[in-house]
Amino acid sequence: MAVVDRTTQRADASHVRALAGFSVATIHEAQDRTGLMHPRLRPLVRGQRVAGTALTCEVSPGDNSSLHVAGDVARAGDLVIVAPTSPCDDGYFGELLATHFVARGVVGLVIDAGVRDVSELTAMGFAVWSSAISARGTVKETPGNVQVPLVCAGVQVTPGDVVIADDDGVVVVAREDALDVIGECRLREAREDALRRQLAAGEGTLDLLDLRQKFLDAGLRDITE
Amino acid sequence: MAVVDRTTQRADASHVRALAGFSVATIHEAQDRTGLMHPRLRPLVRGQRVAGTALTCEVSPGDNSSLHVAGDVARAGDLVIVAPTSPCDDGYFGELLATHFVARGVVGLVIDAGVRDVSELTAMGFAVWSSAISARGTVKETPGNVQVPLVCAGVQVTPGDVVIADDDGVVVVAREDALDVIGECRLREAREDALRRQLAAGEGTLDLLDLRQKFLDAGLRDITE
Amino acid sequence: MAVVDRTTQRADASHVRALAGFSVATIHEAQDRTGLMHPRLRPLVRGQRVAGTALTCEVSPGDNSSLHVAGDVARAGDLVIVAPTSPCDDGYFGELLATHFVARGVVGLVIDAGVRDVSELTAMGFAVWSSAISARGTVKETPGNVQVPLVCAGVQVTPGDVVIADDDGVVVVAREDALDVIGECRLREAREDALRRQLAAGEGTLDLLDLRQKFLDAGLRDITE
Amino acid sequence: MAVVDRTTQRADASHVRALAGFSVATIHEAQDRTGLMHPRLRPLVRGQRVAGTALTCEVSPGDNSSLHVAGDVARAGDLVIVAPTSPCDDGYFGELLATHFVARGVVGLVIDAGVRDVSELTAMGFAVWSSAISARGTVKETPGNVQVPLVCAGVQVTPGDVVIADDDGVVVVAREDALDVIGECRLREAREDALRRQLAAGEGTLDLLDLRQKFLDAGLRDITE
Amino acid sequence: MAVVDRTTQRADASHVRALAGFSVATIHEAQDRTGLMHPRLRPLVRGQRVAGTALTCEVSPGDNSSLHVAGDVARAGDLVIVAPTSPCDDGYFGELLATHFVARGVVGLVIDAGVRDVSELTAMGFAVWSSAISARGTVKETPGNVQVPLVCAGVQVTPGDVVIADDDGVVVVAREDALDVIGECRLREAREDALRRQLAAGEGTLDLLDLRQKFLDAGLRDITE
Amino acid sequence: MAVVDRTTQRADASHVRALAGFSVATIHEAQDRTGLMHPRLRPLVRGQRVAGTALTCEVSPGDNSSLHVAGDVARAGDLVIVAPTSPCDDGYFGELLATHFVARGVVGLVIDAGVRDVSELTAMGFAVWSSAISARGTVKETPGNVQVPLVCAGVQVTPGDVVIADDDGVVVVAREDALDVIGECRLREAREDALRRQLAAGEGTLDLLDLRQKFLDAGLRDITE
Repeated sequence: MAVVDRTTQRADASHVRALAGFSVATIHEAQDRTGLMHPRLRPLVRGQRVAGTALTCEVSPGDNSSLHVAGDVARAGDLVIVAPTSPCDDGYFGELLATHFVARGVVGLVIDAGVRDVSELTAMGFAVWSSAISARGTVKETPGNVQVPLVCAGVQVTPGDVVIADDDGVVVVAREDALDVIGECRLREAREDALRRQLAAGEGTLDLLDLRQKFLDAGLRDITE
Repeated sequence: MAVVDRTTQRADASHVRALAGFSVATIHEAQDRTGLMHPRLRPLVRGQRVAGTALTCEVSPGDNSSLHVAGDVARAGDLVIVAPTSPCDDGYFGELLATHFVARGVVGLVIDAGVRDVSELTAMGFAVWSSAISARGTVKETPGNVQVPLVCAGVQVTPGDVVIADDDGVVVVAREDALDVIGECRLREAREDALRRQLAAGEGTLDLLDLRQKFLDAGLRDITE
Repeated sequence: MAVVDRTTQRADASHVRALAGFSVATIHEAQDRTGLMHPRLRPLVRGQRVAGTALTCEVSPGDNSSLHVAGDVARAGDLVIVAPTSPCDDGYFGELLATHFVARGVVGLVIDAGVRDVSELTAMGFAVWSSAISARGTVKETPGNVQVPLVCAGVQVTPGDVVIADDDGVVVVAREDALDVIGECRLREAREDALRRQLAAGEGTLDLLDLRQKFLDAGLRDITE
Repeated sequence: MAVVDRTTQRADASHVRALAGFSVATIHEAQDRTGLMHPRLRPLVRGQRVAGTALTCEVSPGDNSSLHVAGDVARAGDLVIVAPTSPCDDGYFGELLATHFVARGVVGLVIDAGVRDVSELTAMGFAVWSSAISARGTVKETPGNVQVPLVCAGVQVTPGDVVIADDDGVVVVAREDALDVIGECRLREAREDALRRQLAAGEGTLDLLDLRQKFLDAGLRDITE
Repeated sequence: MAVVDRTTQRADASHVRALAGFSVATIHEAQDRTGLMHPRLRPLVRGQRVAGTALTCEVSPGDNSSLHVAGDVARAGDLVIVAPTSPCDDGYFGELLATHFVARGVVGLVIDAGVRDVSELTAMGFAVWSSAISARGTVKETPGNVQVPLVCAGVQVTPGDVVIADDDGVVVVAREDALDVIGECRLREAREDALRRQLAAGEGTLDLLDLRQKFLDAGLRDITE
Repeated sequence: MAVVDRTTQRADASHVRALAGFSVATIHEAQDRTGLMHPRLRPLVRGQRVAGTALTCEVSPGDNSSLHVAGDVARAGDLVIVAPTSPCDDGYFGELLATHFVARGVVGLVIDAGVRDVSELTAMGFAVWSSAISARGTVKETPGNVQVPLVCAGVQVTPGDVVIADDDGVVVVAREDALDVIGECRLREAREDALRRQLAAGEGTLDLLDLRQKFLDAGLRDITE
């Protein structure tokens, strides 16, 4: 009953590269605060930012069959996105699969579940965002859907979408929105650069963002004596 | 309906400096095991200890208005304490506000909610204790109370109290108790120094702390055969 | 009513050394996926692997009496295993007890509860796996059982068993099974070495592990058009 | 930036009625175990089953503006589905809004957040599935999207889909799949009726479901001596 | 080091009676959305509303000494409020203590921890709001503070304050604010009665609460085609 | 690799009947506060007490194979105890299996995971204690061990032990301890009956349990002025 769809159209590589230049927080803001996965997803190691095309993977609890199918479908630049059909923190992924994925050009893994071989993955430099760490192994009995739209950590992901992950979390940009989001990110960064300089110079956000009167109107009362 | 009170009396700077010399665990013990915030508050980066005067900030869920008001009230040496009126893990604070706070002399942030721009905050060296990390942005519609007494992570905090944070958590010392607590911390450290030397030399706590007979009296039975 | 049993038979030191050479994930697999503690147990510091003989310790919530008894019973090579009778995240253990334990030859601590003095423990290099970090102190009123079989983080532990902990978690090997498990670990590592080389060379797990036909039989459907 | 779409095409009323005749567990199975919301959604009162057409409602944390917009869009037979953009357990809904919804023909509420006025809602017989109960009030500042596709409790919901809720949870059936799912539910119930009679008569599932040999093949070993 | 203060001034009995006439949600709104305890506190049995004067009780984890002291201090009309110094879900309270409390005129219990003897408490009709149910017994070794201000489930409670609990949760009204809050509750109920009638007659909140234009101004866009 | 052991020796039926006469809280106290499962196990319906002989069942996450094997092994008077090898809240059990179990004389189910068909189970009067309710179905691929010792919700259970469950939770009595525990329960109930009468008559626990002086010795200070 499960399918693996090998016809996925990936986002343009230049769009992926451009989005890799912005932080998750900026991208999330630039697309109207949408696309951000639940913050239970945390990087295995701090200080990385990765962007890739979503290779989606649905797993049954305690069964990593779909990750093996994903390895068969993977292309250079893919970021594997794994969602269990129900929450289960087992270690679906470790260094052997990582070795396989690296050989196929996969740039990282986002999984709303557990991974293992943390020391080895760290030594390899393979980038992982997960909701758990667990040595518990999984079976290979019931493959789930691969490369079909799914919900991962609260966000709908379509295969081929751009996914960006850094220390703040994981955000999804729909393939067809990528160019618009890149433009909006640039505008946003320019605005923030200006603001940052003013703040560093000692000015305050109440005035720079026109909040002082707004908050008084909203009922804020000043007690100065 | 919210107020910002600009008349806060801060704890004496010399008291803050003295308390910065003790660990959170020691201070918590020295004041009869009171004042410790819930352990869900964790440092963004390990290995820091910060002490400052509490600048209290109440936020509505998903609304960081009060943090902007806090920037307007902040003085050098303040440690901003943020409590949401109901739990919400959004990212209320990031590097732009941090830039503003640093310019005003704020020494750090304690927030029973989320922050974002983790990489940038780490690079800046701005000290943060939070209960979550999330890129999710907040609105600026409904200011809450600033510089009024509030409960943060289970502890009542009065503006101007001394707050100390390290790898073990966050503790609050009431402004008027600071001197007594400093004295008790010194006594405690002296006692522990002596004990530490004896333990390193191979003696045991059952004898050094007079626990052997106490535990037998409490019903502990030794099986030696 | 509590007992401390001083007659524990420890696992053979050569078995402990041998098991220290394998990862927690490998050992867990080698003994049929048994013996793994709940993943809420996390190392205080990444990058360590420790193996020792279980010194079991049952504590009442908020009472660390048994840890003092444990220090009295400890022998070189012991790994102290602490289970509260009901969940409570207080800091049962800190640097003074660590100093005592180190003097007695204890190699580390596994605790399904909290510890404190994180900075000091890190500086000492004392290895800890815990489910919480908290500065909250505990009392010394009600000793619990020491060196009796108990359940820690979901796993039955008999005093003298071998316990191995690394970045992936904590696993228990029954004293009498140690030799068999070592043998199985060696076989498993040999098989994985071969597989790793093939994967690095670009082969895939679907073929190497004979999963392709199995998954088609299980109903996986390929969409290639 | 938010929209309310008044052009939603609702599922056929006869389909809704038919689906109301099956349990959530049966429907979830009948559509290949898809569409089931996270089990944190629980009925306010046991013993009800409700089916309706999804009226989707996205709320900001602590802000129930969209629920007021939903009341303006509602038609008889709608079931209001509320998803916060980030988790927040405040009480977004109470008896005044329920009175409004009832007047408009709304058949119930599914909310991945909190409700209040539990006694009054129970007395009114208004059916609610929620993830929390909280008296905490919300503001009306920032309307979110209404009647656009969203993810609620882990499931993608399109406005006009059929939603069925009972003591076991909440399931979504896509509008265009409704007829197929109804057919599959009927087949499934017929099969289960036959099986139930055999089980009640003392037969066992190992034989009736052909599991005995399958499990032996999977390695199950019988110890009978 | 703990104290029991027998000099508490209780709120006026007529204020308590008046507040018992309003729901927790109404009272929380009437005092500017303050005083509401965390929603993890749930009634043991639905359908009750209780109001009383706070008898505050601080317990160490797994130690119910203070509840015995509370029985000694209790007066008719008191509602016992129990906060552990750190989270622990043991069963601090059961039917024997309930029998004692009833004999002293205590009207109920609010506890941010566990209770046991649920069947017996239900049969007695003793009203309880708790965050857990557990048969686990506690010790009587370390009395905590009784009748001193404490934080329970996130709210500061002063002995003698009025506490009201119903199906929606638990709210605290400061003794000195009781009269004002009663007045505001009456105004609020009158406003809500009028609104309820209009809603039942088919009018909508967008118009009755002047939200239609406000939401358009906030950027809500109508799609009607 | 899994086994089903058909040679289990059940506890004496008269012991089971006798233990069914005591509450879980009493039994837990009578055996020195051991044997109590984690309070996340809750009854599906309040007001029941069930006692039976443990039929133990280990399941893989999302796989209920072992429950079918359990049906094949069950004898009249068994209480089925289900523990997943790793946490997963799917619905492993519903009314069809309940029909099968009832036909075989099973008296109830204790499961540290989810069940479904709550309405039907309630109507049948089949007694269930679970940690979750979920309509999510499971597969039947990988049988786990049946009738071997396992850890369920933190407690070691040996097949044939007596398990008692009521509104307060679930407790396990080792088969060989049953008679002793029954005796201790009787003593305890007699003592409590006497105490209850005194408390109902207005006496206090501080005096009846000799706590007044003990607490003063422990440092409790009375403030009466």
